[in-house]
Amino acid sequence: MSNKTALVILAQGAEEMETVITVDMLRRGGVNVILAGLDGKEPVLCSRQVTLVPDVALAEAYAHNPMYDAVILPGGLEGSERLSKSPMVGTILKNHEMANKIIAAICAAPTAFVAHGVCANKKLTSYPTTKDKIPTDCYTYVEGSRVVVDCNVVTSR
Amino acid sequence: MSNKTALVILAQGAEEMETVITVDMLRRGGVNVILAGLDGKEPVLCSRQVTLVPDVALAEAYAHNPMYDAVILPGGLEGSERLSKSPMVGTILKNHEMANKIIAAICAAPTAFVAHGVCANKKLTSYPTTKDKIPTDCYTYVEGSRVVVDCNVVTSR
Repeated sequence: MSNKTALVILAQGAEEMETVITVDMLRRGGVNVILAGLDGKEPVLCSRQVTLVPDVALAEAYAHNPMYDAVILPGGLEGSERLSKSPMVGTILKNHEMANKIIAAICAAPTAFVAHGVCANKKLTSYPTTKDKIPTDCYTYVEGSRVVVDCNVVTSR
Repeated sequence: MSNKTALVILAQGAEEMETVITVDMLRRGGVNVILAGLDGKEPVLCSRQVTLVPDVALAEAYAHNPMYDAVILPGGLEGSERLSKSPMVGTILKNHEMANKIIAAICAAPTAFVAHGVCANKKLTSYPTTKDKIPTDCYTYVEGSRVVVDCNVVTSR
């Protein structure tokens, strides 16, 4: 186990593959991953009706450790909307942006960056149907890559 | 939604990606998937410490519907061992083999076919380190393909 830490935020309606693959692969790589439930530590019904149990509530994960090496938002349309509406997610993203930590979002989840006003002026991508939600005066939208990395900001389609 | 049905059997120590990707992709394809907990309907801790909640207990899934269009065993070393030791899994595999339904196993899970004496004389593959557990007098082991399909038997590395 390295001493690198990652916070994956799990909201109802998240895409379960994007959540589980992310957690699993990072853990295989030795990263200490916390899967934190947006609304608590109760089981979370995901977009294709798979139910995942978070390790802890997000509030608890944040209180225990306010700064991770990476914050990762899985996609899923409903999940991304819930992440977009959460003041705590906004606070966490802003704090990690200021600290120049990795901020990552998959599929529809880059829309949460827009909602919380983070990662401005960065290159990013998202699930194609969510492109219109990424304002081009604040972000450089990239079409041709499945994954876009701009400094500490990582997004995927 | 088609009227095709699949039973995915979830044991403690299953590989969570192999479980979730399978369920998610089949549901995207319109298959009616039941994720059934080997030991009940309680949450199941998987190989990389992700906890999944089954839809139902395997006993209940089997009582409700003894015959699915496909039975699928996710891998994971501990999960595969548990599937190998379960008489109910053996019964379900044998019944589905006799009915010529799809029987599939991922990664280490083809070892459960050996344990339960099903899919004899079929071509199959498995995670490379489990190769020695597949007796060559009963099965034709295939090295060169990531996925092997032999009639109704589907296996992957």
